[in-house]
Amino acid sequence: MTDVRIDDLPVRDELRGKSPYGAPQLDVPVRLNTNENPYPLPEPLVERITERVREAARNLNRYPDRDAVELRTELARYLTKTGKHPVALENVWAANGSNEVIQQLLQTFGGPGRTAIGFEPSYSMHGLISRGTGTGWISGPRNDDFTVDLAAAEKAIAEHRPDVVFITTPNNPTGNAVPRETVLALYEAAQAAKPSIVVVDEAYVEFSHGDSLLPLLEGRPHLVVSRTMSKAFGAAGLRLGYLAAHPAVVDAVQLVRLPYHLSAVTQATALAALEHTDTLLKYVEQLKSERDRLVTELRAIGYEVTESDANFVQFGRFDDSHAAWRKILDRGVLVRDNGVPEWLRVTAGTPAENDAFLEAVRDMKKEHSA
Amino acid sequence: MTDVRIDDLPVRDELRGKSPYGAPQLDVPVRLNTNENPYPLPEPLVERITERVREAARNLNRYPDRDAVELRTELARYLTKTGKHPVALENVWAANGSNEVIQQLLQTFGGPGRTAIGFEPSYSMHGLISRGTGTGWISGPRNDDFTVDLAAAEKAIAEHRPDVVFITTPNNPTGNAVPRETVLALYEAAQAAKPSIVVVDEAYVEFSHGDSLLPLLEGRPHLVVSRTMSKAFGAAGLRLGYLAAHPAVVDAVQLVRLPYHLSAVTQATALAALEHTDTLLKYVEQLKSERDRLVTELRAIGYEVTESDANFVQFGRFDDSHAAWRKILDRGVLVRDNGVPEWLRVTAGTPAENDAFLEAVRDMKKEHSA
Repeated sequence: MTDVRIDDLPVRDELRGKSPYGAPQLDVPVRLNTNENPYPLPEPLVERITERVREAARNLNRYPDRDAVELRTELARYLTKTGKHPVALENVWAANGSNEVIQQLLQTFGGPGRTAIGFEPSYSMHGLISRGTGTGWISGPRNDDFTVDLAAAEKAIAEHRPDVVFITTPNNPTGNAVPRETVLALYEAAQAAKPSIVVVDEAYVEFSHGDSLLPLLEGRPHLVVSRTMSKAFGAAGLRLGYLAAHPAVVDAVQLVRLPYHLSAVTQATALAALEHTDTLLKYVEQLKSERDRLVTELRAIGYEVTESDANFVQFGRFDDSHAAWRKILDRGVLVRDNGVPEWLRVTAGTPAENDAFLEAVRDMKKEHSA
Repeated sequence: MTDVRIDDLPVRDELRGKSPYGAPQLDVPVRLNTNENPYPLPEPLVERITERVREAARNLNRYPDRDAVELRTELARYLTKTGKHPVALENVWAANGSNEVIQQLLQTFGGPGRTAIGFEPSYSMHGLISRGTGTGWISGPRNDDFTVDLAAAEKAIAEHRPDVVFITTPNNPTGNAVPRETVLALYEAAQAAKPSIVVVDEAYVEFSHGDSLLPLLEGRPHLVVSRTMSKAFGAAGLRLGYLAAHPAVVDAVQLVRLPYHLSAVTQATALAALEHTDTLLKYVEQLKSERDRLVTELRAIGYEVTESDANFVQFGRFDDSHAAWRKILDRGVLVRDNGVPEWLRVTAGTPAENDAFLEAVRDMKKEHSA
């Protein structure tokens, strides 16, 4: 029995020879590889989570609120307050991480016989979840500076007529935001071609110099804005993603959501975090200024840096980015090699973590110049 | 914009005209409709959950353990202790409810161009998640007494050569267990036909008069046993499902699982509950004796009852089962109309809840006889 391996099982053909997605998890002093927020939740919030979970645990023998009404109401309130656009309960849907939100969208609007497009390099889960849901994946183009090549993107949309269009802004792993006009033009192109659903993935938008694209929802029933509590809320461990869209989109994803997908403890914890929004957004301000410092200092050291509106920075260039990743790791700092040739990605950590990172790359630069 | 509805969106054709799955949630004094455990978690366990979640919350800015190693180790320990079969970490996988376990199995072994079979009436999510993952669904037969018609089932497997075979034991909504020999015969039939993956859904097995089928895993790498903490552990709100299988199956589902699918608070809460297994299994004994009482008393009143190895009882027959459901509801008790003609399902509640239910159906019987 012990000699049975994955490929001996009747798995789907496209899974043969594949390995699971995920960043290497290494035990290193400074981990700046998965765009986590470096600040632990403040202790009053930890206590509030504890209280809310105690209450939820007393009713844990019952199924959770299947429609997560209280949570969606509070998420809508947060979006309304910060997004310069009124959002209500019926515009919001939540799931276990934005990955599950994206999976539900693809099960609803993509799937077998349908296609989705993204402009790569971008968040690789868009393509992976497309494949996981049987949706054909189209890798759309970017310019050499990682901006979206609008003319080429419009051409690709007209040619392939995808059912779902992903626009990640700020983009991961490159860090740059997609201008509002580009998003509008892509939405128009997608409507002319099909019409298709356009998913604006704003996982990192709280770190942006600019505003959320939530106001674009007005009058655009095929637009979806996806969000997460993993980054700005410092709650990657919570796995809470959500979307804002026309109520019909929210109704539609409920046709594919697994019933009771969101546990009572997840709902309770997220509600506690939403009570502490103001405090958490102060950490975001600190991270933004650290992010800006990383950009400035990396350039001063002599690296190229892509403009960043996120809590991470893409820097380069390296003849061999994997070798550079290894050299930084040897100096005790874990960054991310996302497979973008010549570039690496570093998450903005605490000031001390960022100092350690900057020292490592300064040292590496010297060695290289020596 | 407000006039846009689901069917105006570019949803998949098979979703048009559909409505979301889920039992009606009504505000009724006695709710015996969703097979929940009626006993709230004991207060010491609530406190232990609180402690574990507090600890997890202090690290919530970090992603959770992607592989849930501690949790899977404790689940393996529980299965080994109660299942008369040694189970280790590498045999176990966990997800957000057994629904997500089933979805991952279907994404791995089913999907577009493949089929799955179940013997209906059975847990309707097997068919719904099959359709949600693009897997063709085959409704296999049962006898009139709701036992699996083995000859007909073997014939259906040989004819359709399904990629995935679901066997629910104890079966939901009928309550009866599938004999070990029948499961073995179906496994053999499935191997001869394809070979296919056989999923034994044991969500209710802790309430059974007999043993778990875990020992059948020995030497059968295409067999999967799925479980849940929703019922015996009294933790429907937690959404924790899991499976035991050959390690290659566990490796394979990791190719399709969303990374970090299981939140840190879910893992912490489940670990706390697993510390209190002995206490929770005492509630199971109470529920088993209440279940047996329901069977006896329903028969004494004059109803037909299907043999039950679960925490619920199927009873009938009714010329119009929906009208009977309504009459019971009018008497303040919510049971479930699962769409099985002539039959309804009642969950074993507390003694007081069961008394209320029995009074309601006794009263209904009198009215009918009057």
